This record gives sequence, structure tokens and C-alpha cells, in this order.
Amino acid sequence: MHEFDLIQHYFTWTPTPAEVRVSVGDDAAIVQVAPDEELIISVDTLVNGVHFPLDTPAHAIGYKALAVNLSDLAAIGAKPRWLTQALTLPKLDQDWLADFAHGLKELAHQAGIFLIGGDTTRGPLSITIQVMGTTPKQQALLRSGAQVGDLIFVSGYLGDAATGLAVIQERLSLPTEDANYCRERLNYPSPRLELGVWLRGRANSCMDISDGLVADLKHLLTSSQVGAKLYHQSIPLSPALQKLDLSVALGFALTGGDDYELLFTAPKKLLAEIENYQLVSQLSLKCIGEITSKTSELSMDYELVNLPDGYNHFQ
Amino acid sequence: MHEFDLIQHYFTWTPTPAEVRVSVGDDAAIVQVAPDEELIISVDTLVNGVHFPLDTPAHAIGYKALAVNLSDLAAIGAKPRWLTQALTLPKLDQDWLADFAHGLKELAHQAGIFLIGGDTTRGPLSITIQVMGTTPKQQALLRSGAQVGDLIFVSGYLGDAATGLAVIQERLSLPTEDANYCRERLNYPSPRLELGVWLRGRANSCMDISDGLVADLKHLLTSSQVGAKLYHQSIPLSPALQKLDLSVALGFALTGGDDYELLFTAPKKLLAEIENYQLVSQLSLKCIGEITSKTSELSMDYELVNLPDGYNHFQ
Repeated sequence: MHEFDLIQHYFTWTPTPAEVRVSVGDDAAIVQVAPDEELIISVDTLVNGVHFPLDTPAHAIGYKALAVNLSDLAAIGAKPRWLTQALTLPKLDQDWLADFAHGLKELAHQAGIFLIGGDTTRGPLSITIQVMGTTPKQQALLRSGAQVGDLIFVSGYLGDAATGLAVIQERLSLPTEDANYCRERLNYPSPRLELGVWLRGRANSCMDISDGLVADLKHLLTSSQVGAKLYHQSIPLSPALQKLDLSVALGFALTGGDDYELLFTAPKKLLAEIENYQLVSQLSLKCIGEITSKTSELSMDYELVNLPDGYNHFQ
Repeated sequence: MHEFDLIQHYFTWTPTPAEVRVSVGDDAAIVQVAPDEELIISVDTLVNGVHFPLDTPAHAIGYKALAVNLSDLAAIGAKPRWLTQALTLPKLDQDWLADFAHGLKELAHQAGIFLIGGDTTRGPLSITIQVMGTTPKQQALLRSGAQVGDLIFVSGYLGDAATGLAVIQERLSLPTEDANYCRERLNYPSPRLELGVWLRGRANSCMDISDGLVADLKHLLTSSQVGAKLYHQSIPLSPALQKLDLSVALGFALTGGDDYELLFTAPKKLLAEIENYQLVSQLSLKCIGEITSKTSELSMDYELVNLPDGYNHFQ
């Protein structure tokens, strides 16, 4: 049973209360709390050895635990407001805690989000962060709004984090500088909060890429009941990944997780405006394909073989 | 370093944003989200083998994970609205999940709270539930409002859950019926939501008893900058605990955790009204002492010796 089936089966409750506009299944929940304001709620857990290698610096864990949650707010176009954390620690290690708290607060400060509560308990190291944000009523960006003919965009570069993990796990060897760059992208993802807010009223659909472009785009296609065609030469690869064999680099970019970049679709007429925003924001926004009418069908002009997890074609 | 010092040191951020009325340190956070409504946010983690014995039925785990959070909403006088959960599972066990989900939903249904999101991940079993509730503006019950001369009340019976744990851990032997009763009180605590709402505008201070009466009352006294005198004959003991040696029963009632009863203070003039509510609600509300002016000092007309953890007097 896949995680999505599990959630669907055990934790999708009906009927949904009237004030809950989006419940289980999108990047975050959306609840109407005031006539003109909606509350956006997201929760993510990081488990030691599962979501980060066992020797990840505490500062990076604190930073990343918040970053992955903020990325969900970015994907929905929300302004971050408050966070809570549930921290389970195997022992009281003050050096570790100081570094962790510092990493958390550094990003919180940048993002303008404030810690309002939590729970601290003893057990195997795990960190659950819940973020709350707000948007004006009905302006949140959902996964379900992609339209046939929309262009598909992604922010930043794809595959760097998965490449960083491969380097740490010694499945891949890179020049020192590239290895350091990819490890930094794994440990310190950049939630695209400003982009998310800018996309309100512009993008037809949006989500963040946490499980890899292909897996996440498929969710978007299913939610929107559309298909997509991708152009492999447009997939944005960092200078570090451009040095790899193309099919290896594309493998990381298409199926590697932990990028936390935004994936969104917008009508063709917005292309010039998006290109201009790219110049102003200095953030790469690449058009990587187009939405088609073939429901849930994803195709690409390149066939991948020998990917790490046996993935070899799109459906 | 104690949990409270840890939170104080690493996770108490300043300055608090204007819309955050109560932050880290009370039963829950309180945030102003609309002109006449406040959002109440609480988070609690349950870790396998720490917060419940390893062989606790999944149904009870689901029920209790929500109950301990709802108890925080009860303590603040909030109406429960929404919950999220972060579920970390060692493996996919559908029987376990079905029972867990059933226990969670059973209590959620009773309490009128709705699941809006979450995160599922693989790792050592741990459950983090976050509840959100609402109150009319400025009506939440805080720990900091106790007044000299207030009477101190507790709901229900104290010490049953700790006695249940002692039975499970074979540190104590009880007649079968009493053992079953105490184990049920450990596994299925009753969040006192209706009482919490009723206490709005009546109690001067309120919190829930999760760490034991003495430990929790001390927090209330510190928050309110007052002292307290307790009367040992008024501590409410269930019929099961009344059969034990008085000092053993009082030990469980005063220092045992997991009761999730409400502890509140109210002016003497409300005594008759509270006694009448007790009759109507069929919920025991015992006056167990009085608030004094001796800041943070807690005294009782009975000296306890030989408590399990070496506790032998108040101060």
C-alpha cells in the first residue's frame, strides 16, 4: 500500500466541514478563518536516517525541517505566519540543540515566521514542524487548476539534492566543489516563498517538488485531469549536473527527491511576464513543457534507461 | 536541563508578533485571526514505549493521541475545530492502522474535530497530533490568572492512570475489576471539553493535569505568582484507589501523570454555581484547597513519605 492509498483509506474523512476549503491531499490544508482571510496549514516530519543522513549537522536539520514545510506554503502562495514543533530527542545534547535551534531560527527570521508552541519528548530523534500561513480568500494556488495548453515551469535547478545524497552515500564521485554544492542543496533547500506569492492570480496550478519532478507532476496531472509533454533539453540542470552523463543527470533531475522547487503551470500569454520576473528575481524559471488533454499521461522527448530505481519510461 | 528550561533557552523567541496573544509556555498558543475570534494551537507527541507501553492496543493509541491534545484545548476553554497528524510507522500494518484510525476518529467525532492534513513517514513508531480550536476574543482560560483567596478545584479522580501504569508494569497488584478500571483510565483519558467551555468567564485560571497535580499546580502558581494550600482529605480518589493505603493512593494522585483532568481556580462566591454544574454534568468537581499569597509555595496538611520517586515534601 502506497502512502497516498494509506491516507486515502484511513485518514480522508467526510463530510468536510464548510469552512475547510482544501483538506487532505494538496500541499497544505486551507481553512476559512475570517471573511477575507484563509489559514494554510502544513505538517512534515523528518526522521533521523530516513529524511537526512545520520551525520547531518544539527544546524542543517533545524534549517531543513522548517524549509520543507515553508516550501509547502510557497507552493500554495501563502505568507508564512506561525510554526510549532514536536521535537523527540534521544538525549539532551546542548551543543546539538544550540545548533539545531540556530538553524531553525535563521530561516524563520528570513521567512518572517514565528515559533508559537511545541512539545519536547524523549525517544528516537525525530522532528515534526507544522507551519501556518495566510492568504487572501480564494487566492491560494492549488494542484487542480492546470488547463490544457498551459506552459509548465519549474524554478531553480532540479536533481542537485539527490546528487548530493548520492555523493554522501558514495554512490557517485564528483569534483570537491561540485560535491560541496550538491550537499549544500540537499541540506539547505530554498523555499520559494516570494515566487509563490507572486504566482497568486497568475499560475493556474502549483505544487512543490519534494518527491521528484515525475512523481509530483503526475499528482498535479491527476488532480487537474490533464496530461503533459516534457522537453528534456529544457530541464534545468546546475553546472555541477551538466558535467555528468546526460541520462544520469536527467535521472536525478526527474526522479530524485528533495529539490523543493516550485512546479507550476500558466497560460502561454504570461510567458513574457514570467521571463521578466525571472530577470528581476534572479531566480531561474524554466518552461519545461506543456499541458495536454490526455488525462494523467506524461510523455517526454527522450527515453531514460538504467535509472537507479529501475524507472525506464513514462506512461 | 529540564524540559521547561530547554524550551525557555532554545525555543522562546522574542519579540512576539502583535497577533500572538499567548506563545510558548501555556497549554496552547493563542493567535488572533479575526476581530472577534482567536485560534488556539496545541501540539503533543506520543512515542512508543515512552508515552504508552509497547503493547498498548492501536485503538487506544489513536484515541489517546488525540485525547491528550484535546485536553489542552479543554484547559484553555477552546472549541475544537481541526487536527493534523504526523504519523511515523516502522512498517505498514493494515490491522494496526485500521484500529488506530478507528480510535482516533471515534474521539474526533465525539469532540466535533476534523482531520485536515498530515504527514506519513517510515521510522520508529511515533504520533504527533496538532489540534486547532477557537474561542471568542479574550475569553481563553490561562494559567496566569489565579487570585489570592481563590478556591482550587479538580475534575474527576486523580491518580487512576498512574495506578494503571503501575499495574501494567507489575509494580502493584489490584483486584481484576479495579485493575481494568485503572488501565482504561490510562488508555482512554477523557478530555474535559464541556467543562472548559463552561469555565470561560468563571474560572480565574485553568490548566490540565498531565504531569501530576503537584508538578502542574506548581506551574500554575509560578505563572500566577501566588501560593496554595491543599487539603489531603479533599483529593478525589476513585473507589479503586480508596482501597489502597492512603499514602500510596495520595502518592499516585499527587505525583502520577496522565490524568488529563482540569485544575482550575475560581472565586469563593462561585462555589454554589460550581456545585450545581457538578450535579447537572455528573462530573465530579472537588474543591481541594485555596490560593495563598506565598508566591510559588505549595503546602498540604499531610506529609507524604516513601513515594516511588523519593518525593517527600512540598516546597
